[in-house]
Amino acid sequence: MVKQQLNGRRSPQNEDKTLNLKEGYVIGADIGGTNLRLALADIKGTICARWSTSTAGIRSAPKVVDLIAEGVDALLQQTSLPRSALSAIAAGAPGIVDVDQGIVIATSYLMGWRDVPLRSLLEAALGIPASIDNDVNVAAIGEHYAGIAQGVSDFVFIAIGTGVGAGIMLNGQLHHGSAWTAGEIGYMLVPGTSEASVERGQPGALESIVGGEGIRTQWQNRWSENATALPRELSATQILDQAQTDPLAGDVLLLSARTLSYAIYNLSLVLNCPLFVLGGGVGIHPALGEATQQFLHQRNARVQPRIAQSTLGSEAQLIGAISLAIRTAKTCDPIIQS
Amino acid sequence: MVKQQLNGRRSPQNEDKTLNLKEGYVIGADIGGTNLRLALADIKGTICARWSTSTAGIRSAPKVVDLIAEGVDALLQQTSLPRSALSAIAAGAPGIVDVDQGIVIATSYLMGWRDVPLRSLLEAALGIPASIDNDVNVAAIGEHYAGIAQGVSDFVFIAIGTGVGAGIMLNGQLHHGSAWTAGEIGYMLVPGTSEASVERGQPGALESIVGGEGIRTQWQNRWSENATALPRELSATQILDQAQTDPLAGDVLLLSARTLSYAIYNLSLVLNCPLFVLGGGVGIHPALGEATQQFLHQRNARVQPRIAQSTLGSEAQLIGAISLAIRTAKTCDPIIQS
Repeated sequence: MVKQQLNGRRSPQNEDKTLNLKEGYVIGADIGGTNLRLALADIKGTICARWSTSTAGIRSAPKVVDLIAEGVDALLQQTSLPRSALSAIAAGAPGIVDVDQGIVIATSYLMGWRDVPLRSLLEAALGIPASIDNDVNVAAIGEHYAGIAQGVSDFVFIAIGTGVGAGIMLNGQLHHGSAWTAGEIGYMLVPGTSEASVERGQPGALESIVGGEGIRTQWQNRWSENATALPRELSATQILDQAQTDPLAGDVLLLSARTLSYAIYNLSLVLNCPLFVLGGGVGIHPALGEATQQFLHQRNARVQPRIAQSTLGSEAQLIGAISLAIRTAKTCDPIIQS
Repeated sequence: MVKQQLNGRRSPQNEDKTLNLKEGYVIGADIGGTNLRLALADIKGTICARWSTSTAGIRSAPKVVDLIAEGVDALLQQTSLPRSALSAIAAGAPGIVDVDQGIVIATSYLMGWRDVPLRSLLEAALGIPASIDNDVNVAAIGEHYAGIAQGVSDFVFIAIGTGVGAGIMLNGQLHHGSAWTAGEIGYMLVPGTSEASVERGQPGALESIVGGEGIRTQWQNRWSENATALPRELSATQILDQAQTDPLAGDVLLLSARTLSYAIYNLSLVLNCPLFVLGGGVGIHPALGEATQQFLHQRNARVQPRIAQSTLGSEAQLIGAISLAIRTAKTCDPIIQS
């Protein structure tokens, strides 16, 4: 792991303050549909400062890059660091990302990006090397770098927020797939999901039952004043919070957990990974993880994968971006490489 | 690819007849539930001689190894080669194989092997380096070496015979999984499959509809004299043969193809591999491949994987074993490596 390789590193250059500064800091960026979050960290991954802003209503990629540049200025100001102290930036974006070319091929309809050369936009705006990847992949990197999957070379990170996606780590490397779409499990077909073909950008079969928006829809489809004393308008996590006491909420939890257990079972058959990490705002809910693990235990599978909650929670993407930026700095700068 | 690396290789040793013989030949073995097939090939992969025998009723691993030794003797006799001409053997076995340790962890109930040290048994019996792997994985190696997947670094080989299994090639390497069970897709859960947990050794959810035995069962469950003029006792391929003209056989084909298309769709979501190769006695039936591709085309998927029939057919495992044996010879012998 990058972190371990760097620990205890002592080179003559370290005594030169300018070089120390030059190799010393990176920016991690988490580009979301509603928020942009940045962190400035040293090359060991320690976060020195944070900055965030709303991206509500902002869809233009150049505007998002402007916001990132603004945030980087603010972070430098906060830490009194010179711009020359920055070695690299990495960003996770909510869409399909061609990592080699540095292009966001497509995002969901919310942002509507198509073939955005985000890496070169970032490099032009900031004058430092940049790397980008899909946000769920970046979160998986985060869990591998500093979360529950530290030291685990094969695992699947399943992000359950509004929708569902996965980051697949095999032999310590992300598996991206030949068209950069590996891990798009929100569309997976399992017993109980709709078999109908869905339009692109519409919720997939699996996420219609397991995702946050899907859980809300399942709840509302079943809701009546006779069935529950709870209000019709609840968020997915509020529904899961009530699953122990409210029968209807309990039913919705069981439906989601059983469906998720089928997806994890299928992933385990295909990949035979020992660990599945549940992340995202809905995925980290303990009730969902526990019920899913119980459903999996009921299956007579040769291999029982372990299900664990993300330990980084909402930080996974930011910390993954920092890890990716550190790797980028090391790759691009022979002084840091050494 | 090994084959290409070897083409045109000229080393001084080649002029020494003894060394040429020493590095020159390998044995590929395909251990099946009913048949054992061997081939002797030169280091370029050209098959020089074949041998096969029935394994019906033979379950003991040492007896199977004795049969292999007998077959190797016969192959040497056929080709008038001395024993010293053999560099390596590789075998595909129908079960879960720990490739690193050379152990068959488990086979289906038909053979009933548990933790059989097949590699060392072969090495002791033959006095040459041996490699073993799961038979479907070995078939995938075959398609990669000399079949439809030549030059394709990411693909899934789906073997449909009595049951269903997959060999997953990523970045030109087989993905085995942390407990050597990757690709056990016969148990995959998709819409229309049973959700019930199955006992180990019993047909999995997917193969109960897509496998040869499953297709027969689906046919028999639906069969009546009113529904079809065909007899109740038909093999899976006979049923598929009649799908164009017989309505009931057509229904069974559509059920199997739709279910298989769901599994391939799921695999494509997870792995984003551009190619799926259908192999095995049932998998190579053109009607199944065509109907499955049509079902996949109906889905509005971002990525449309290509479905192709195995070009090696029943030879895939034997040719894969030869390829694996050539790799083993190269790894174990510094003269061949050079």
